[in-house]
Amino acid sequence: MKNIVILGATGSIGDSTLDIISRFPGQFRILGLTAKSRDAKLEKLIERHAPKVVALADLKAAAALKKRIGNKRVKVLAGEAGLVEVAGLAEADLVISAIVGAAGLLPTLSAIQAGKTVALANKEPLVMAGEIIQREAKLKGVSILPIDSEHSAVFQALHGERHEDIKRMILTASGGPLLRHSDIEKRKVTRKEALAHPNWKMGPKISIDSATLMNKGLEIIEARWLFDLPPDKIDVVIHPQSIIHSMVEFVDRSVIAQLGLPDMRTPISYVLHYPKRAPLDLPSLDLATVGTLTFEKPDLKAFPLLNTAYETLKSGGTLPAVLNAANEEAVAAFLNAQIGFTEIEAVIHQTLEAHSPQSADTLEAVIEADEWARMEGKRWIRHYARC
Amino acid sequence: MKNIVILGATGSIGDSTLDIISRFPGQFRILGLTAKSRDAKLEKLIERHAPKVVALADLKAAAALKKRIGNKRVKVLAGEAGLVEVAGLAEADLVISAIVGAAGLLPTLSAIQAGKTVALANKEPLVMAGEIIQREAKLKGVSILPIDSEHSAVFQALHGERHEDIKRMILTASGGPLLRHSDIEKRKVTRKEALAHPNWKMGPKISIDSATLMNKGLEIIEARWLFDLPPDKIDVVIHPQSIIHSMVEFVDRSVIAQLGLPDMRTPISYVLHYPKRAPLDLPSLDLATVGTLTFEKPDLKAFPLLNTAYETLKSGGTLPAVLNAANEEAVAAFLNAQIGFTEIEAVIHQTLEAHSPQSADTLEAVIEADEWARMEGKRWIRHYARC
Repeated sequence: MKNIVILGATGSIGDSTLDIISRFPGQFRILGLTAKSRDAKLEKLIERHAPKVVALADLKAAAALKKRIGNKRVKVLAGEAGLVEVAGLAEADLVISAIVGAAGLLPTLSAIQAGKTVALANKEPLVMAGEIIQREAKLKGVSILPIDSEHSAVFQALHGERHEDIKRMILTASGGPLLRHSDIEKRKVTRKEALAHPNWKMGPKISIDSATLMNKGLEIIEARWLFDLPPDKIDVVIHPQSIIHSMVEFVDRSVIAQLGLPDMRTPISYVLHYPKRAPLDLPSLDLATVGTLTFEKPDLKAFPLLNTAYETLKSGGTLPAVLNAANEEAVAAFLNAQIGFTEIEAVIHQTLEAHSPQSADTLEAVIEADEWARMEGKRWIRHYARC
Repeated sequence: MKNIVILGATGSIGDSTLDIISRFPGQFRILGLTAKSRDAKLEKLIERHAPKVVALADLKAAAALKKRIGNKRVKVLAGEAGLVEVAGLAEADLVISAIVGAAGLLPTLSAIQAGKTVALANKEPLVMAGEIIQREAKLKGVSILPIDSEHSAVFQALHGERHEDIKRMILTASGGPLLRHSDIEKRKVTRKEALAHPNWKMGPKISIDSATLMNKGLEIIEARWLFDLPPDKIDVVIHPQSIIHSMVEFVDRSVIAQLGLPDMRTPISYVLHYPKRAPLDLPSLDLATVGTLTFEKPDLKAFPLLNTAYETLKSGGTLPAVLNAANEEAVAAFLNAQIGFTEIEAVIHQTLEAHSPQSADTLEAVIEADEWARMEGKRWIRHYARC
């Protein structure tokens, strides 16, 4: 019986993880769950899965939950400290890190420092603090197993292979809902259009990141740290059907790819059962029915944020943390109808330009850069909101 | 330094193997080479690679070679017994089995019985005598490493995976040069058209097998024995671009595929360096340049031999050996302009129909079935030649 903690249990990855766990009765025990503010949904999860401890980042939501259910059936913790405590629970065997955005940094680090195997769906901690996270993981002998479909694909392709035999990895990108939009059309994109991902049903933040291709940019940075490869060994190819989830080319020119229907339950099941696989009663990929897979080079002019992410990764230091924070602020502002779609990239570029990069080898430096970038980003958001 | 024996050194796989070996000076030593009858080419290979022993299946060719070069630089053996002796050389570390057709059966078995690791490009021995070969390999603790691009792809996809986690394997088939031909057009197909494989440059026998899809049928049977999977777990999908070389679907619906440009040197290098990989200075697969990969169900009406192969595998016994022998005779007769293209399948079907299947658990039974099928096949060839 594996004891599981899910950080970010009320989101889309949380749903899928609990779906998979419910398919293997007796194999997993839900030890801890956390959420940001959705106390009603968390209460339902408590009823169904009977965790020992839960935490809500939002203090009011935590207080409301505590008031309704008391501390009898479950210990209710509050705030970031509560999340950090749940992430480091002594009995946990596997921590699913599925918080959205930078908010996942400290809980994820807490799990690593407690020596837990971490299954990572939350890419932002690695984007912000990849150097620190990998240093800590190495120190504690902790395995980080990727959940993101692209990184899971690479991880599976590398299974049993030698790191020195890798020539490059090739991350596939659907291109998102705006792949064929002209620059002018993009200026008028509505939230609904930008949220309408062609292949994957995901939360709003990652959906917008997919529309700007920033998601792929963040994934490049994530991949750099997960697989210890330099930026020039990480390529991106546009593959609108999202059937090949990603690939690794080896030095002998052999390419290993992982394919499947777009369903996060497969990579989630993989990390839950790793290094084994377990039978899932899901539809099989039938390539004859799919018929055609297409591939094209990413258009870096139409999607400049992809290149921006490459460049911040190459420059390193606090730049990726700034990129991430400015992006989170800009996406929130777009979802909030404060700025237009193309102003997301403008906010990010202005913020990056104003930044004086520092070394990112301490948590303090990373958090300082993150906070600075949010202030600076908000300044530019107000600027564009006025335009 | 690995001591290498190449059975069938003067063919296309032999060429590619020697090309790869020449790229890694000091790592491999050519211990033995065999050929059917091309003594002039073998002589050149002797000059360049200085093997200790060679053998020519054709007695006259062996005598001619011996007369020209004597026994000084190299020991020259003759006939099937000579091939069998080279295959079992005590010093050999790896035997590349690349003879075309049933002629490879005894030499391949000899290598296995001598306890050598066998890299198998010659699929017919497994088609004829899969049960015996796998029984002997198990007894001697011998690994059989596939060279065929499809089986190499499956082998690579399975690397590090558990056999019990396999749901099915999916062999890809280009469909060959006649994929879009109508039945009527097929009757008039010339040797040149049937030999013109769209993606791979191969010898004449396998090229014709690709045009009839019999090659894929033989590969299904080969895969059944190589990977110990029942026929209903082996699927075929038509993929005209030959970029995905084959796939494995696992029980969690994850599909692992091996991709690459069509170049046999990659799978050959893989078996030479297995379980490591070695850098090859060959072009990389660029999917954005390839652009489109397509997939379709095989048309079993247009290519009935694919289904015939499935059925003989399911029925088992000596039927696959008969299928193989009748096919070899029919293909030779077509290449010899004795029968037309569509009569290849007619010869095979008539021969199979006339056969009384036996158990294929002894070499005698297999060889008897093979010999019977060649007689019966020739009878039908004469019949159609008269039509």
